[in-house]
Amino acid sequence: MLKGDERLDYLLAEEMRIIQSPTVFSFSLDAVLLAHFTYIPFHKGSIVDLCSGNGIIPLLLSKHTEVPITGIEIQPRLADMARRSIQYNKLESKITMLEADVRDAPKLLGKEKHALVTCNPPYFATPPESKVNDNEHFRIARHEVHGNLDDIIKVSSELLRQGGKASFVHRPARLLELTGLMKRHRLEPKRVQLVHPLPGRDANMVLVEGIKDAKPGVRYLPPIVVHEENGEYTELVREILYGKGK
Amino acid sequence: MLKGDERLDYLLAEEMRIIQSPTVFSFSLDAVLLAHFTYIPFHKGSIVDLCSGNGIIPLLLSKHTEVPITGIEIQPRLADMARRSIQYNKLESKITMLEADVRDAPKLLGKEKHALVTCNPPYFATPPESKVNDNEHFRIARHEVHGNLDDIIKVSSELLRQGGKASFVHRPARLLELTGLMKRHRLEPKRVQLVHPLPGRDANMVLVEGIKDAKPGVRYLPPIVVHEENGEYTELVREILYGKGK
Repeated sequence: MLKGDERLDYLLAEEMRIIQSPTVFSFSLDAVLLAHFTYIPFHKGSIVDLCSGNGIIPLLLSKHTEVPITGIEIQPRLADMARRSIQYNKLESKITMLEADVRDAPKLLGKEKHALVTCNPPYFATPPESKVNDNEHFRIARHEVHGNLDDIIKVSSELLRQGGKASFVHRPARLLELTGLMKRHRLEPKRVQLVHPLPGRDANMVLVEGIKDAKPGVRYLPPIVVHEENGEYTELVREILYGKGK
Repeated sequence: MLKGDERLDYLLAEEMRIIQSPTVFSFSLDAVLLAHFTYIPFHKGSIVDLCSGNGIIPLLLSKHTEVPITGIEIQPRLADMARRSIQYNKLESKITMLEADVRDAPKLLGKEKHALVTCNPPYFATPPESKVNDNEHFRIARHEVHGNLDDIIKVSSELLRQGGKASFVHRPARLLELTGLMKRHRLEPKRVQLVHPLPGRDANMVLVEGIKDAKPGVRYLPPIVVHEENGEYTELVREILYGKGK
């Protein structure tokens, strides 16, 4: 079931397992915080996760919803890892992983019909060829090689029904660009949560949720601080990662 | 020196006094936090404070700079209170208070020449006449009666030299509008700090600093939390209000 240097890692908070590989892709705290931050429809509708990687977000969301979840991942190796993790956790009836370009998602999954879109997109605009990561897998995961932020927001909006929600995680330096694109594509930003690596440090991550065709007006939630001064995870982040009381 | 119901209040952190009146206007924590947040030129340039009220921001800034400060306030009663506070603190050589409409500031003070503009603007868009506060003084201080946010940002940018800075405080619900207007008027948002009233509560205030004609890229500073769970000021806010070690 595992290939090459892959590992079967624990998703502790959810008592699941996920296949990862250090040379291909490992999920990050960013995805875990996004899954924790986002609204999740429980009974009705459907969920689409764009730029799904090894399927971390669909796996985490699946424990909190009865609705079908579809992940979209363009890299065959990652989509394959995600599918085997889905199988291992016996979630085939709930999660589908499609190997496809994000830009084809509305054509594949239908327009104006989903309740939630999540995405942990590549953070970096496409740099000059020379500066891009040599590892093709990291390159695609980190840089806007297959579709840029505008494409991703546009597609997210197209997938959603009116009142549907879209949740994103990104770098704070691109927050204004992100919210600007969201507004342009009818995804009104409604909730923002900044993530600081340590007390007293600038934010290095931001979570944003928008609602399609909603009225303007954003809430700024209490920030998440990831580590204590001594480098350990804060209680909140420990709970998110490992579950309550662990 | 005091008129009617005016009081001579302490500005403890700065060992100054300020004239206030409960029926006209008292400065708020918002202005104090803005004065603490903003960059302050020390030797060179000049500072303009728009919507200056009873002069709280010029008074606070004056202790940290040698450059001349001009406050603009449209309400005669408030401009008069500010002038008497300036006199009481013997700051006439440093602070000038003009009774004028913000929109006339570039004409009065010159374009493209100042190093810093600060503004604690009215927070509310002009509502229907019936809903506006009956007290004329509060009405003008809280609602966009004399110039809206677009006017204020436009004027701020006109006043500033290239590389000059503008600092604003506003409600988080209008942060995206504020940063959008700043970008439109060449004031690139560079630093944002959210203010939360209590731990675990949404932000109810936001501080933003922009630089004229700068490159895009925003830092999100560690948030300010105003009160402890028990309702007392946090150590940081006590220091800002009363000075260190008090």
